[in-house]
Amino acid sequence: MTENKNHERSAVSVIGLGQMGTRLAQAFLTVGHTTTVWNRTVAKADALVAQGAVRAATADAAIAASPLIVVSLPDYTTMQDLLGPVARSLRGRTLANLTSGTPEEAARMADWAAGHGADYLDGAAMSGTRLVGRPEALFVFSGSPEAFATHRSVLASLGNSMHLGADPALAPVYDTALFGLAWGALAGFYHAVALVGAAGVDPADFAAVATGHMPFVTSLMADHARQIEDGRFPDDDGTVEVHAAAMEHLVQTSRAQGIGTDVPKLIKALLDRAAATGHGTSGIASVIETITKGERNV
Amino acid sequence: MTENKNHERSAVSVIGLGQMGTRLAQAFLTVGHTTTVWNRTVAKADALVAQGAVRAATADAAIAASPLIVVSLPDYTTMQDLLGPVARSLRGRTLANLTSGTPEEAARMADWAAGHGADYLDGAAMSGTRLVGRPEALFVFSGSPEAFATHRSVLASLGNSMHLGADPALAPVYDTALFGLAWGALAGFYHAVALVGAAGVDPADFAAVATGHMPFVTSLMADHARQIEDGRFPDDDGTVEVHAAAMEHLVQTSRAQGIGTDVPKLIKALLDRAAATGHGTSGIASVIETITKGERNV
Repeated sequence: MTENKNHERSAVSVIGLGQMGTRLAQAFLTVGHTTTVWNRTVAKADALVAQGAVRAATADAAIAASPLIVVSLPDYTTMQDLLGPVARSLRGRTLANLTSGTPEEAARMADWAAGHGADYLDGAAMSGTRLVGRPEALFVFSGSPEAFATHRSVLASLGNSMHLGADPALAPVYDTALFGLAWGALAGFYHAVALVGAAGVDPADFAAVATGHMPFVTSLMADHARQIEDGRFPDDDGTVEVHAAAMEHLVQTSRAQGIGTDVPKLIKALLDRAAATGHGTSGIASVIETITKGERNV
Repeated sequence: MTENKNHERSAVSVIGLGQMGTRLAQAFLTVGHTTTVWNRTVAKADALVAQGAVRAATADAAIAASPLIVVSLPDYTTMQDLLGPVARSLRGRTLANLTSGTPEEAARMADWAAGHGADYLDGAAMSGTRLVGRPEALFVFSGSPEAFATHRSVLASLGNSMHLGADPALAPVYDTALFGLAWGALAGFYHAVALVGAAGVDPADFAAVATGHMPFVTSLMADHARQIEDGRFPDDDGTVEVHAAAMEHLVQTSRAQGIGTDVPKLIKALLDRAAATGHGTSGIASVIETITKGERNV
């Protein structure tokens, strides 16, 4: 019986075999977990079955096959359509839901799962599909800490799988916030590439230097998070006024080079607002207050 | 004579002992270079002299003392005021200028130095003053490749000192571009902290996850630089349309949480413009074109 239990513990089912679901199943297979797959369009499982996955004939059979059910579907409506009729099978299982949705949808889904006797984890893949299975692929999960602890090693097959807390809404909250963070960095990068490009610098040459600079920028985030938590903004990394002047220089340089000025103008506006609310000589992390207060109140 | 020559090679003078100049001199001293210092306000050198620096009585004496003259002054006007009268002493020396300025100022300064028989390097400190002397402190230099090669080991005392190319204007171009890149990332981070904060998440808790996500975001920059160079934008990291929809979700979520929407709105606008110019189903790096073309042409 011990052998059977160990076997059960490393069994996982994947429901929904789109681009992401397929990569998830492949990552489980690569590590050697018994991986059962199901998709409404049956043919989508063919390649995975050729790679060693077990094809479930029905969603019910996929749920019955494993203690951990990973779901990756286009949206919550599709998920309700597919899981609603087989909800009774979920009793005693853990549902790890990687379908993108809102914090409210995650909270409702957790309640629904609890109502059917299932543990619930909400999850989000933060690094796209290409890196799935590699340690740098970030997966965030929230919901039942016990379920995460039980299935931690299986979920770690996907990459860097982190548990954010017991509130199932945390995963979609982080998902949205990290998406915005990534895009802030990318917008800054695209603007920088455009600017150096106007001076004849190749994008890849600039990227080699820029990527070497990002660990420093990342270290500022950790420092500034502590400042924001303390509500005190020392000027170790320069004052709002000094950065506003430098950002105005970037706006003017961009204009002179004939490239778009939207990115530096937005940041200049944030800095100007921070200065207008008395933070001119504060450190730059005080800019957070112009965002937390919302545009109506500034 | 050989001994004397070796000694000369590792001697460096620092002119301008503000916050940055002081840190530069300390970094040279830490590594054991003979470091001569001069500042218009004499007392600013006192602490450095106590740490082992040699005090020069005049700017002329500071220049005479070392083959490498590192200058860190508030602006180019101050620099011309101080160096103009002692320009003749610069013959045969290398002037490494870390004073912030424009590409045009750097180019003029390089001409001026050449006119007085000096080699010229323009430089910029990209990581503030706190990290100076540590390997993660990025310093970019441009100008005479021979001068950089000669003084490479001394300049390496400052941190990660890179040579960008022979054009002296490159350092201020990179300086401005990297500043914008850093701010894009920070604006995205501050917005993200505000968003998770509205859901009750501590800034430091979020930062721990966010900083773990940044290496992935940084890897996208390297990938996208290659795409931009090729002028081809595969959708490996998602299409412009899909990201625009997700960004609209971020705008709405931010508004619902009562925080500012400027950052996601700007990015949504860039994505919408990319879609409007036929890049809806292209990869997201195609957004670069909405910046390189300038706002007038989009």
